Amino acid sequence: MLYLIGLGLGDTKDITIKGLEIVKKCTRVYLEAYTSILTVGKDALEEFYGRELILADRDMVEQEADEILKGADVSDVAFLVVGDPFGATTHSDLVLRAVNAGIQYRVVHNASIMNAVGCCGLQLYNFGEMVSIVFWTDTWKPESFYDKIQRNRENGMHTLCLLDIKVKEQSMENLLRGRKIYEPPRYMSVSQAAEQLLEIVQNRRERKEDLAFTEDTVCVGLARVGAEDQAIRAGTLRQLASCDLGGPLHSLIVTGHLHPLELDMLRLFAIESTALRDLKMLDSSTYTS
Amino acid sequence: MLYLIGLGLGDTKDITIKGLEIVKKCTRVYLEAYTSILTVGKDALEEFYGRELILADRDMVEQEADEILKGADVSDVAFLVVGDPFGATTHSDLVLRAVNAGIQYRVVHNASIMNAVGCCGLQLYNFGEMVSIVFWTDTWKPESFYDKIQRNRENGMHTLCLLDIKVKEQSMENLLRGRKIYEPPRYMSVSQAAEQLLEIVQNRRERKEDLAFTEDTVCVGLARVGAEDQAIRAGTLRQLASCDLGGPLHSLIVTGHLHPLELDMLRLFAIESTALRDLKMLDSSTYTS
Repeated sequence: MLYLIGLGLGDTKDITIKGLEIVKKCTRVYLEAYTSILTVGKDALEEFYGRELILADRDMVEQEADEILKGADVSDVAFLVVGDPFGATTHSDLVLRAVNAGIQYRVVHNASIMNAVGCCGLQLYNFGEMVSIVFWTDTWKPESFYDKIQRNRENGMHTLCLLDIKVKEQSMENLLRGRKIYEPPRYMSVSQAAEQLLEIVQNRRERKEDLAFTEDTVCVGLARVGAEDQAIRAGTLRQLASCDLGGPLHSLIVTGHLHPLELDMLRLFAIESTALRDLKMLDSSTYTS
Repeated sequence: MLYLIGLGLGDTKDITIKGLEIVKKCTRVYLEAYTSILTVGKDALEEFYGRELILADRDMVEQEADEILKGADVSDVAFLVVGDPFGATTHSDLVLRAVNAGIQYRVVHNASIMNAVGCCGLQLYNFGEMVSIVFWTDTWKPESFYDKIQRNRENGMHTLCLLDIKVKEQSMENLLRGRKIYEPPRYMSVSQAAEQLLEIVQNRRERKEDLAFTEDTVCVGLARVGAEDQAIRAGTLRQLASCDLGGPLHSLIVTGHLHPLELDMLRLFAIESTALRDLKMLDSSTYTS
């Protein structure tokens, strides 16, 4: 049996009872280590589970899946994923390979950022399509996520923006020379994401295009959701651009229409006590500072 | 401290280690019993936790919140919610009351149907706004969710349809007479939801309106996600209307554009082995049977 087990979002103790029982009985346990991270590392998990974990990076999962599945038809193998196994990145490919090899699989679900963002008080059924904001480079500055946020805003919906993670990336030089030297991991912060969004707003303004949101749009920054030291800050996009939420992982929400109850909850997390007090209404339910 | 603790989706063992530790140490533990259910009841949870639970119905949470919060400033009170505490229905109101009373709160997240639906192979970032499908009556047949599904389909997005739950409802007669006699709980099944959608399709066709989807649109029915006996069936809307997925809770997905990998996953759950084999393409990525 192949078990895909979600670890949740915070630390060692966010695994479920069911998940922990399975981890303890499996022959091999892999830890997927490239789509998300907990606030604790492999060592802490190994100590808590009382067993060894095998780190599975993107290369291993995509190119050596057979190695992971080896023997799973006669013994039990677990594949641990931060959040939910079918969260931010899907592991459908591994499931399909297992099924094709005659291996049964089971999923042990857990929280992912997609549902845990509800903790900021914005209602999950008011979210539209989510987007990913990628790190810009000097020569590559895609704006496609802006259009999706715009579409959501036009429909009054909030947008959850997942922020880029760069793990085990090679520099262009090392890639070209075939050198397996990796850059240190990078995790996009709320302020970096807000800076990029502000630049797009500025670009669109200069091109005299319609603006889906502005520097004054109410946004929410979230960091380490589910952990003891989680941080949530609500304020304008401009305020979030200069807001330090500490270590990874971060997420950003651009709000759509706000229900009074949602606004009351956001005020608990206001960057400044006055930040969300005197909002102007753009229409019946869209606010700006 | 007020703890809002998610129980996940399956049975007793889907609570997290963190959640269970808190349940064991709290002075009082409430079980919210009107927005969702596990495949096991209060008795099984009490036995597993080794302690008594207080059932909290909608009236209690909405009208006697002070009773729940009593003493939470000096001792620990837990409020258990199936799924994630901020899942299908928000408990923001309880949080705001706690904060206003000077009571600290903490959230222990868990899986909810919003992220666990990923288990059918449809990618979560391809979902648009979710909708709720309510039980129709003889005189009340709202179609508003159809328009949201239509908007999602136009953008190529899948739609998660949460299906109605009626718990502790009074008949009109008992309500008018002020008799606290409640109807047996009702949970909408995938086939009931599909029947209602088919009726809307028929109505719109008769009114010669644009159809966002038809009897042949690829849909997915899910039941008891996360439990040992979970059921997932993919097929056309018409096929799902005559498909019995067993006990509650059920959810339905109307697909948008399908990526080849998504389609491969859905085929694992095809109602008939031939059901999703010979799909016609409506455009580059929308399929119909």
